[in-house]
Amino acid sequence: MVHPSMPSVSDASLPAEAGTEPDRRRFLRRSGGALVGAVAAGTAAGALAQQAAPAAEQAAPAALPPDIPPWMKTPGAPTGGQLYGKPSEFEKNVVRHLRPTDKQYFSSSTRSPLQELDGIITPNGLFYERHHGGVPAIDPAQHRLMVHGLVERPLIFTVDDLRRFPSVSRIHFLECSGNPSFTAYGKTAAEANGLVSCAEWTGVSLKTVLKEAGLKPEAKWVVAEGADAAAMTRSVPIEKCLDDAMLVYSQNGERLRPEQGYPLRLLLPGYEGNMSIKWLRRLHVVKEPVYSREETSKYTDPLPDGKARKFTYYMEAKSIITSPSGGQKLMAKGFCEIRGIAWSGHGKIQKVDVSVDGGRNWQRAELQEPVLTRAVTRFRFPWEWNGEPAVILSRATDETGYVQPSLEELIEVRGTGSFYHNNAMTPWRIAANGEVTNARA
Amino acid sequence: MVHPSMPSVSDASLPAEAGTEPDRRRFLRRSGGALVGAVAAGTAAGALAQQAAPAAEQAAPAALPPDIPPWMKTPGAPTGGQLYGKPSEFEKNVVRHLRPTDKQYFSSSTRSPLQELDGIITPNGLFYERHHGGVPAIDPAQHRLMVHGLVERPLIFTVDDLRRFPSVSRIHFLECSGNPSFTAYGKTAAEANGLVSCAEWTGVSLKTVLKEAGLKPEAKWVVAEGADAAAMTRSVPIEKCLDDAMLVYSQNGERLRPEQGYPLRLLLPGYEGNMSIKWLRRLHVVKEPVYSREETSKYTDPLPDGKARKFTYYMEAKSIITSPSGGQKLMAKGFCEIRGIAWSGHGKIQKVDVSVDGGRNWQRAELQEPVLTRAVTRFRFPWEWNGEPAVILSRATDETGYVQPSLEELIEVRGTGSFYHNNAMTPWRIAANGEVTNARA
Repeated sequence: MVHPSMPSVSDASLPAEAGTEPDRRRFLRRSGGALVGAVAAGTAAGALAQQAAPAAEQAAPAALPPDIPPWMKTPGAPTGGQLYGKPSEFEKNVVRHLRPTDKQYFSSSTRSPLQELDGIITPNGLFYERHHGGVPAIDPAQHRLMVHGLVERPLIFTVDDLRRFPSVSRIHFLECSGNPSFTAYGKTAAEANGLVSCAEWTGVSLKTVLKEAGLKPEAKWVVAEGADAAAMTRSVPIEKCLDDAMLVYSQNGERLRPEQGYPLRLLLPGYEGNMSIKWLRRLHVVKEPVYSREETSKYTDPLPDGKARKFTYYMEAKSIITSPSGGQKLMAKGFCEIRGIAWSGHGKIQKVDVSVDGGRNWQRAELQEPVLTRAVTRFRFPWEWNGEPAVILSRATDETGYVQPSLEELIEVRGTGSFYHNNAMTPWRIAANGEVTNARA
Repeated sequence: MVHPSMPSVSDASLPAEAGTEPDRRRFLRRSGGALVGAVAAGTAAGALAQQAAPAAEQAAPAALPPDIPPWMKTPGAPTGGQLYGKPSEFEKNVVRHLRPTDKQYFSSSTRSPLQELDGIITPNGLFYERHHGGVPAIDPAQHRLMVHGLVERPLIFTVDDLRRFPSVSRIHFLECSGNPSFTAYGKTAAEANGLVSCAEWTGVSLKTVLKEAGLKPEAKWVVAEGADAAAMTRSVPIEKCLDDAMLVYSQNGERLRPEQGYPLRLLLPGYEGNMSIKWLRRLHVVKEPVYSREETSKYTDPLPDGKARKFTYYMEAKSIITSPSGGQKLMAKGFCEIRGIAWSGHGKIQKVDVSVDGGRNWQRAELQEPVLTRAVTRFRFPWEWNGEPAVILSRATDETGYVQPSLEELIEVRGTGSFYHNNAMTPWRIAANGEVTNARA
């Protein structure tokens, strides 16, 4: 792919003699000086940068590279000052988003700041949260997992027992089935779709553990129960348990974080997040689903005809543009890489199309390799913004051929009584002044 | 691969009526009760776990699943109590390792706790550190990158400028060239080889930025300079700069951590870590390398004949068993999954062989997919420990066919005057009591 000339320098303090080609200068003159302090440094070429800095540049509001910045004049912070590291103080606003309306903490959620993230891995500190009874503080030495019911050998495991089983590591997304509800559009990518994250998980295949216990022929469902105050409980079809389900103890290399189920969780790749029971304490092998509260009064999708979709496990193909996205502002006409993420509970993302005219025309985005099954895939699309208002959106297609719908298409099938499993496209409106807002708001 | 029966339950409190097969019971009797509290729970089958718990079990030192543990009796911690999350308090000892002898913090390092990690992604809080003048606290709004020298258009970029370029995300390892020195063997995997980590990096291809500046025909090297107090400086061949080199601003989804070069670093996949200049402020395009201190008096490998290997950039194929490894203890005979990591600066890992008899016989380990170029690859090997002393080790082969050497083979070529680029195998000795130590110590 050939990329157009980059908006790499601003004319805010560009010396008149800087010999850039006409196209560049035209672009730069329209940028309004928003990219502060970028200058062509022709006179410094070949010289030691700090020696070549004229006094005038030292008076500029931002230190230029020819200056010696203050952090080069004194030794930095010691190694090991943070034996467990944390982000820069300058990034203190990059946190999970808690909706101001979510006051009752015992059943609540926080969202990953998608518009701040790059790549496909969500760092553990910013992985979205959803729990139904707060985050328990579990002593791993006291925690147990019981496997019982329709098995030959009921078993109780410590976490260390499970760590001795053959291990597996895979990168998968997790997404809350209410990401978002049908009526909540959100001002930012986090508000719109921040109940999705992606990590490398390590644990033991659930199939291995169930074989250790020995399934009886009539075993058809496994009821998973969490050790939180909600005793979060869901029924899982035996087919999924014997496929790619995992008992997970590590996330992105280290042990699970408390809010992700420490010290042990179920992971059902591609299923709605609440079924991947956290703080897992019990797997009860049974003949029929138990119809727990969280699979009847909650996590069910009413349809226009009064019936309800039952057991809608898989999260279907979806994508969202994270940059530019709501709350951001384009600073200049010209090159703007459209970036976003796509994922599907049914497997790999096959393609992502991007429209910059509200969905009339579509062009293929580039997918970042490796494209992994049931994992987030990063996409990119090179765009030349002409400075006029525009509506941009993305549309994912997964390897089954399923195409992400518009909200209108989804409502046509599901009606407006649905709450979960809204995988509609998110359109962002770009105003002439560069401000980006949710086109549905 | 068929896995043998798992050491999944202990007989520490196993009811006499638990009907496990003879092989299992034999294994368990020898386990010495080290896996505490795992019991067969036949009587609880089909009943609600918390109702089925006999009083005697409640008196056991560890709460069994049939009990309601204390964390189920009260709501947990609120969502959003940690808008940037952190690990469990029970994992507070899983931190980067600082050698007690490293007192002078301005040129020091900390090691990733390899023996505690799973998968291939190193979480940012545990990524190894190596710096030469402490960790600067850089204001990203004031930071600049200057590209000058043998270019058509010398340029200065803000971090935001660079974020507007086409982006790329890739998973690569970083390794210090002194990981470890030829004489430092280490008691644990962290001490032996903890100056390696792996992350998903996002940034802009250096090639794109150099093309923006326009390379002159005589441009053969790029001198990269950091904005730390050491002004860390290395010369990079232009071929690498135009290949897979990146200017990186994000690591594992979020912005770089301070100790990893916030807000901008160079990344030279496969090269020795110190060349991936952190806190990058300057790229000086030149004809010849500058022979900086860090590529002459340091990071050079003396040979037995008095000469020195010059510019030994690539980190060659290497592997280490991380479990079981030094400082750990096998609790029982029987199944023990040998786990470790392998990597090569020259590309993908082709295979890893494992020996459980000190290197006499070798067997192929399983590699966790996806196997990525210049990234850590996780390997696993199912082993039945017979309870006798053993020496275990791993040997990586990369896609070029290069085979990781023993230390003896390495010394035969390099002599004993070398400090850097020790990619020798690490043998672990397992004693009859299960204790694991470095077989070289």
